[in-house]
Amino acid sequence: MRNNNQVSVPVIKRLPRYHRYLEELKNMGVVRISSKELSMRMGLTASQIRQDLNCFGGFGQQGYGYNIEQLYNEIGAILGIDKRSKAIMIGAGNLGHAIATHLHFENRGFDLIGIFDNNPNVVGTDIGGRIVMNSSELDEFCKKEKPVVAILCIPSEYAEENADKLISLGIKGFWNFTQYDLIRKYKDIAVENVHLGDSLMTLCYQINTFSDNGEEIK
Amino acid sequence: MRNNNQVSVPVIKRLPRYHRYLEELKNMGVVRISSKELSMRMGLTASQIRQDLNCFGGFGQQGYGYNIEQLYNEIGAILGIDKRSKAIMIGAGNLGHAIATHLHFENRGFDLIGIFDNNPNVVGTDIGGRIVMNSSELDEFCKKEKPVVAILCIPSEYAEENADKLISLGIKGFWNFTQYDLIRKYKDIAVENVHLGDSLMTLCYQINTFSDNGEEIK
Repeated sequence: MRNNNQVSVPVIKRLPRYHRYLEELKNMGVVRISSKELSMRMGLTASQIRQDLNCFGGFGQQGYGYNIEQLYNEIGAILGIDKRSKAIMIGAGNLGHAIATHLHFENRGFDLIGIFDNNPNVVGTDIGGRIVMNSSELDEFCKKEKPVVAILCIPSEYAEENADKLISLGIKGFWNFTQYDLIRKYKDIAVENVHLGDSLMTLCYQINTFSDNGEEIK
Repeated sequence: MRNNNQVSVPVIKRLPRYHRYLEELKNMGVVRISSKELSMRMGLTASQIRQDLNCFGGFGQQGYGYNIEQLYNEIGAILGIDKRSKAIMIGAGNLGHAIATHLHFENRGFDLIGIFDNNPNVVGTDIGGRIVMNSSELDEFCKKEKPVVAILCIPSEYAEENADKLISLGIKGFWNFTQYDLIRKYKDIAVENVHLGDSLMTLCYQINTFSDNGEEIK
């Protein structure tokens, strides 16, 4: 039914959000939902939702709405969540620790199979049931376990050298929490940036614009 | 010189990124840069950069490039970084702890003036020099200190009740780390979401699309 090649990037970008709302509805025990009800919850128009979901072959039946569990599973499959790619984390400081314990990786498409740090005070500690390994073990670990994604929770100044090394060890994608823009050097890898500082400054702009002009910037 | 009212949202969204690159260049001791050099660093076209910066009255001189410190300061002023809005954090678990210690709030437009939690094991602990207060002190603190932004690092199921209360206490904007979409209920507040789960699933899609088709989705 689905034909991912024709799906536009804005639609792809909205899929995790659909997945999140559908998960919430599923957990509430809701079985079916109309595009109108879903649109009110999500702040999109009903026709936008129908268009988006039609890209994947259409799951709704006119007058019956969407079967939530079916749609949830199908969107999960499109995102590739069931494939459970192997991920490693580089850097187990405060931020790495929080990310490793806060996220349900297995529900978001990944198995976090290793955490590495070079700080002797951190190596050997337990983070959510995973023992932090020494960065010196990284080469051997990657050759054996073949992780495809690295989560970078290290200071920005170490991002480039770590990325070079990780790519040579077979890493195909980064979840990047550093300020370093990986994409400016590597063209053929997947990168998802979480630039927290940029996000905070965007909020700063919004707050100041609200209070200056009393109008919203969206 | 500047006229923020005519500036489009995509330009606004790029400003933190300009600020970040200019900060990096400034710290490297670079004094001037041409739009061509800046474009190569940032992965934008030189004409895009010239267009963006012209929105604010234009800082460059033909043939001389941009004065980095001047441009950095001006973009910071547009974002309102120098105004240093008062922010509080709700939730001092692993994630809150990491955010509070990881970010330089004062360089991003905010003073983090209070951290609150209702867990007795956390209340009274020191996070980066700030003592975590009991959530029961929140009302009095807000009346006295008048913070305008709240950073939500609490479980999603508590987001709505906390947001209601915080808005009644004068909060005008949220840095939202919960999965709850605040914007669906409150229309006249500033919200910047950091949906980590959505980001992780977007990476999941990219990784699986790369490996299936060998081509990039951007």
